[in-house]
Amino acid sequence: MKVSSNVEEERAVATIADLGERGVIELVRSRMPAQWASDSRVRIGVGDDAAVLTTRGDCVLCTDAVVEGVHFRDQWSTGADVGVKLAARNFIDVHVMGGHPTALVVSLTAPADTAVSWVEDFADGLVSECTRAGAVLVGGDTTAGWSLVASATALGDLRGKPAVTRAGAQPGDVLALAGTPGRAAAGLAALMAGAIQHVDATLIAAHTRPQPDYVAAEHAVLAGATAMIDTSDGLLVDLGHIARASSVTIDIEPEALPVNATIAHAAEMLKHDLRSWQYAGGEDHLVAATFPHHDVIPDGFVAIGTVSVGAPEVLVRGEPWVGSAGYEHFR
Amino acid sequence: MKVSSNVEEERAVATIADLGERGVIELVRSRMPAQWASDSRVRIGVGDDAAVLTTRGDCVLCTDAVVEGVHFRDQWSTGADVGVKLAARNFIDVHVMGGHPTALVVSLTAPADTAVSWVEDFADGLVSECTRAGAVLVGGDTTAGWSLVASATALGDLRGKPAVTRAGAQPGDVLALAGTPGRAAAGLAALMAGAIQHVDATLIAAHTRPQPDYVAAEHAVLAGATAMIDTSDGLLVDLGHIARASSVTIDIEPEALPVNATIAHAAEMLKHDLRSWQYAGGEDHLVAATFPHHDVIPDGFVAIGTVSVGAPEVLVRGEPWVGSAGYEHFR
Repeated sequence: MKVSSNVEEERAVATIADLGERGVIELVRSRMPAQWASDSRVRIGVGDDAAVLTTRGDCVLCTDAVVEGVHFRDQWSTGADVGVKLAARNFIDVHVMGGHPTALVVSLTAPADTAVSWVEDFADGLVSECTRAGAVLVGGDTTAGWSLVASATALGDLRGKPAVTRAGAQPGDVLALAGTPGRAAAGLAALMAGAIQHVDATLIAAHTRPQPDYVAAEHAVLAGATAMIDTSDGLLVDLGHIARASSVTIDIEPEALPVNATIAHAAEMLKHDLRSWQYAGGEDHLVAATFPHHDVIPDGFVAIGTVSVGAPEVLVRGEPWVGSAGYEHFR
Repeated sequence: MKVSSNVEEERAVATIADLGERGVIELVRSRMPAQWASDSRVRIGVGDDAAVLTTRGDCVLCTDAVVEGVHFRDQWSTGADVGVKLAARNFIDVHVMGGHPTALVVSLTAPADTAVSWVEDFADGLVSECTRAGAVLVGGDTTAGWSLVASATALGDLRGKPAVTRAGAQPGDVLALAGTPGRAAAGLAALMAGAIQHVDATLIAAHTRPQPDYVAAEHAVLAGATAMIDTSDGLLVDLGHIARASSVTIDIEPEALPVNATIAHAAEMLKHDLRSWQYAGGEDHLVAATFPHHDVIPDGFVAIGTVSVGAPEVLVRGEPWVGSAGYEHFR
């Protein structure tokens, strides 16, 4: 990682081999805000065999990882971007269950020649996104490995309410989406094409440093969302999870999908089909939810489809989508 | 992983590229015991954006990973061994905080050419160790990557009791250990030397498929342990964590350390210094605890040292240990 290209530079770059495992843990700990030490939810934080947290009733638990060369590339993303992306993809999963993130633990596998500055940035990214989500980093683990792999587990609090699952969508519900789909895919396409100067920087950031709309998920819960998911693998794939779990047909109206000028411009510049980004682009982490009536859909959401009795599938204006539906690992 | 050496064999081995990400998740799910679906602690298990668990009061949370080529090698360990090792190292961390494991989530990064049979075995190993620990596998994540990296997060229940930390050892306490240290190091040394036929198979298993003594940790809590840790990095290093966190001097008596015939024989056969395995060998995951009196030390533990006022360090019969103290990643 960021190994320099000649011997002189190489000497100048401190690596985690200089720090050792315990030095890396201390480094991350030193980047954490002082007030976390007195957070009332944390009885024991970083530094023992395990953390101890106060919990109230049911808790939400999820895990997700980012892998160098799969979810990020060193030349495109800073350590801070990777820290933000890792934390964000976990916290939005907590939110779309109806939970509020409380804590994060992180496991970092890294080559010994990883720059210390990369780990500093990574820690800062984790802290930044934990702060945005109202959660605390309470523990972790770091091990040597062949490439950068960072996984995290987020814990959340349902605050006494029932979870919102993928299985609650009912025929007659309205499907709504918060945000413009396809932005992360557009950013990734620009990076892959070496054409970032031709697209808006917010699209690049949508891929490298996602900022999911946690508040939208909270509003959806308050509005009585019957089912909820975040669009991580692609809009149609993720809606398919709701369709199958709820045993309903979801029909989306293409003209209703939010499009903005930046993504339309990017599609033109990169000569890419806008719809395929919107239907199949991964890592947007937008909140998609079903609601019992049009008039309860909260601000920030746009109605994009309907839920009806039928085969558990997703249709686009009554027809199956024939393009790629989304991303799947190992395929 | 287990990629076959010629084209004909290669065709015969199903890989996770054939299954895809969702197929891998379904495969793991299909190996889980039916009764987990009705476990009263699990409101929502595998299959949604996150799991939902019932919790009572404070909960324990820890994370740990295993990396191919660092914690295991494909030619030495089956997928089941890796699953057991991953789960066990997390569950013992819960136990040495005074907790009882309730749930595990797992993040698996694997090359697309990983054999399906490896993942089946890995799932079986996870299930086996979850069952032994009384916990339930409630979720996970799988992504493509360049080598096998598996990380897990365990959740535990303190059952209304306070946590036992590294910081509670008091001058005058007695240090006790449950089990024989150095066995995993002896097994690893035999594997590295290609000499497994010369040592007892239990030593190999201590490295490849550890079975930490969860009951010993429970007994230590009931007996009033003041501080507790498991020996994952090496006995002296791990006792050093207690010494620093508790601001005490720990003095161990070498003659008191449990030695058995198999490890003594292995040291002789491999011409290795037995004491350095015992002081510095990692991954034994033995429970070490301090107790206020000799007479409360539970069955299964042996007194191996004393706790006194002094510099926060570990001494061996009053002197610093001059050999390697243990393993540290990146060094």
